[in-house]
Amino acid sequence: MLTHLDDQNRGQMVDISDKRPTIRTAIARGCIRLIPDTINAIKEIKNNKGDVLAIAQVAAIQAVKKTPDFIPMAHPILISKINVDFYFKKDLLYCEVEVKCEGKTGVEMEALTGCSAGLLTIYDMCKSIDKSMTVENIYLVKKTGGKSGDYERKEEF
Amino acid sequence: MLTHLDDQNRGQMVDISDKRPTIRTAIARGCIRLIPDTINAIKEIKNNKGDVLAIAQVAAIQAVKKTPDFIPMAHPILISKINVDFYFKKDLLYCEVEVKCEGKTGVEMEALTGCSAGLLTIYDMCKSIDKSMTVENIYLVKKTGGKSGDYERKEEF
Amino acid sequence: MLTHLDDQNRGQMVDISDKRPTIRTAIARGCIRLIPDTINAIKEIKNNKGDVLAIAQVAAIQAVKKTPDFIPMAHPILISKINVDFYFKKDLLYCEVEVKCEGKTGVEMEALTGCSAGLLTIYDMCKSIDKSMTVENIYLVKKTGGKSGDYERKEEF
Amino acid sequence: MLTHLDDQNRGQMVDISDKRPTIRTAIARGCIRLIPDTINAIKEIKNNKGDVLAIAQVAAIQAVKKTPDFIPMAHPILISKINVDFYFKKDLLYCEVEVKCEGKTGVEMEALTGCSAGLLTIYDMCKSIDKSMTVENIYLVKKTGGKSGDYERKEEF
Amino acid sequence: MLTHLDDQNRGQMVDISDKRPTIRTAIARGCIRLIPDTINAIKEIKNNKGDVLAIAQVAAIQAVKKTPDFIPMAHPILISKINVDFYFKKDLLYCEVEVKCEGKTGVEMEALTGCSAGLLTIYDMCKSIDKSMTVENIYLVKKTGGKSGDYERKEEF
Amino acid sequence: MLTHLDDQNRGQMVDISDKRPTIRTAIARGCIRLIPDTINAIKEIKNNKGDVLAIAQVAAIQAVKKTPDFIPMAHPILISKINVDFYFKKDLLYCEVEVKCEGKTGVEMEALTGCSAGLLTIYDMCKSIDKSMTVENIYLVKKTGGKSGDYERKEEF
Repeated sequence: MLTHLDDQNRGQMVDISDKRPTIRTAIARGCIRLIPDTINAIKEIKNNKGDVLAIAQVAAIQAVKKTPDFIPMAHPILISKINVDFYFKKDLLYCEVEVKCEGKTGVEMEALTGCSAGLLTIYDMCKSIDKSMTVENIYLVKKTGGKSGDYERKEEF
Repeated sequence: MLTHLDDQNRGQMVDISDKRPTIRTAIARGCIRLIPDTINAIKEIKNNKGDVLAIAQVAAIQAVKKTPDFIPMAHPILISKINVDFYFKKDLLYCEVEVKCEGKTGVEMEALTGCSAGLLTIYDMCKSIDKSMTVENIYLVKKTGGKSGDYERKEEF
Repeated sequence: MLTHLDDQNRGQMVDISDKRPTIRTAIARGCIRLIPDTINAIKEIKNNKGDVLAIAQVAAIQAVKKTPDFIPMAHPILISKINVDFYFKKDLLYCEVEVKCEGKTGVEMEALTGCSAGLLTIYDMCKSIDKSMTVENIYLVKKTGGKSGDYERKEEF
Repeated sequence: MLTHLDDQNRGQMVDISDKRPTIRTAIARGCIRLIPDTINAIKEIKNNKGDVLAIAQVAAIQAVKKTPDFIPMAHPILISKINVDFYFKKDLLYCEVEVKCEGKTGVEMEALTGCSAGLLTIYDMCKSIDKSMTVENIYLVKKTGGKSGDYERKEEF
Repeated sequence: MLTHLDDQNRGQMVDISDKRPTIRTAIARGCIRLIPDTINAIKEIKNNKGDVLAIAQVAAIQAVKKTPDFIPMAHPILISKINVDFYFKKDLLYCEVEVKCEGKTGVEMEALTGCSAGLLTIYDMCKSIDKSMTVENIYLVKKTGGKSGDYERKEEF
Repeated sequence: MLTHLDDQNRGQMVDISDKRPTIRTAIARGCIRLIPDTINAIKEIKNNKGDVLAIAQVAAIQAVKKTPDFIPMAHPILISKINVDFYFKKDLLYCEVEVKCEGKTGVEMEALTGCSAGLLTIYDMCKSIDKSMTVENIYLVKKTGGKSGDYERKEEF
């Protein structure tokens, strides 16, 4: 059942008043496929000052905080931690975002939104080199806390 | 060369003052992989009132307008048109976003950001059914206008 | 006494630190007067895909969440539920917004702001048919919770 | 015809790329019904420092600038002037907002949104005195510029 | 140690999940140096309607609420009180901002951000008289609450 | 004369419709006084990955774009360039922000707001080391373009 739709099949922001605040965490992961020129450009700068990734990281953190602005039915949440990691694996640059809160609703959307903003910022910073970059496989890796219980994705990308 | 970095390899918002305003368009596409239950839930409601996709569409349109808020080095732009389409292809739900402006810089990031918000909103609306949905292959399909010329992606996803 | 003004008659955001968090609800209602052509245009589409109202509903929900941005002295609140309903009564289209939170301050302004955004979005979507639409009678229907007690408006509009 | 809906009856932000930029103005007006106690509270402070109206005025101006954030299909616009007036008439406090831009689309929604924010801020500032205030009759008084021509509302409220 | 940087020296939003919510306050102060013409212009209007300071005050209050938007690593906080004062001392106009919350992290950044927005708004309102105004000495006057304990600045500016 | 106030001494956003769009630039500068421990902490990291300054730089760039949100009477502007520099001079860390646009109004407030956000972010990143940091002397260094002509500040701080 789609809990975001009311009896008339219209959207609503579902009632979480009676939920107990618990510690909730979520980790989202995604990647962007790059050509060697782009990887080198990012890495060389990283070796010096690391700016492309530093900027993408700030973008991810800021996007996590703006999730209710971005996702219409998302509740405002008092985020208590955001951690963003980038790492290369062959021709893929991964972005992994961990979000934590003590609240009445989960932080899956926050982690996914942050991950998406981080990867799109990589695109923006590198699009003068190559416009064919593809953002691939943004998904929820893991969540803990809340009534619906913990979740962990088995497959990897 | 990464045009968003200055001589000291720090980020900057590149100077576009001397560019001529021209009509610019960009189309971005992405998709989200769904299980049959989710597809049915979305389609049945669509047959009645279409709300999941209607909400995701508003999310995409609003996100396009907020791109400079999400992508640190993106310039503010006077968007003149936004069009968002959703369509199913087997177990994939596609989101395609077209953006147009008359301005000094392109609207690629706007189209990509809108596409990403549309797909993440699908995730949010359907995550009570299935948490393993994966956003796949967000990429620039086409752009026109501007000094760097037109671009069209050959491969399809 | 205007509690939002300090001793020097300047605005302030009043201190709610010592208030106890309680469940608070508010319902606001308003309407927009439409000519038959507009009503038909909305209803026909509603019969098919319901988009005008679906878009206005998302607008109302997003506006509720942005209330502290809109109303200078409004406190940030962790909204736990938003429900938006539209219904026709003769030549009036009503928008009713219910907001709920567990917090130290009421959600009246949130409900009123959402209602106003929903009705203005109707105006925006229909202004190509008729520019003389009038938003009428936005008011607080009911509130519960908080030290100032419950409130219910007797008259109807 | 509802120009904000595409062929599939979904919302879109309509294409204004081919429109010529012209000077456009819009004036919106609305009022809020107050009990004598509230009017006195506002007026006395106005006689001294005018803060309730000063705060409501800033709220109106800021809301005009945020219109595309609140109204999903509204285009971003480079507002060139905003003027906000408040005046009393018996038990009604009027808010009148004039907006001007040189652009490809009108500023009706901007004027209406500003007016609505101004009146709701009055509500917020005075709700400790009386919760039964009603926002009444927000409407477009006049618009000039653009292909659809000038418009002026004959009746008065 | 810079707590906002993780092991790889990248920024993160530090984990405050395990902190206990306590009442926290912060007071920030700053000033702007003005020429006599500007002081007179502000004071005369203040004697009548006080608008420059009233507008700057709203700016400060709104900025406090937007701090996490402005300061990348700042946590979202449920502000429970904001108070803004302006006062003249010779050729300096001071802005003092007090912020209070019950939460897991302090409100120093909120007070400093509000103070900065208040002073910059003075600049904006008066720059037609004099462009050489200088914002001087924005600093934390005092904080209470939280594990790191209370703090009070001894020197004065 | 304070151009932001109308005949009744209320704030307004002044009319710039009849101004000609010209290239406009502004440079603002400010600094923050640091103890040696803080300077070392920033520099060491800078030698490795430069993150404190990289994050402050993104904060400054994002703040420039959000100026009309922070400064009530500021017009929305299509910024065409933002450049942010940080440099040390003894126990002061300077932030210099250059903003450029082609438009009808100047970018002084944008440069000053960016500078202020950059410096406050330094405070936020380093406040675990020392809470007595003071933001000093934020001022307009230079502006070009527009009817009021060019301006350059002679004294230095």
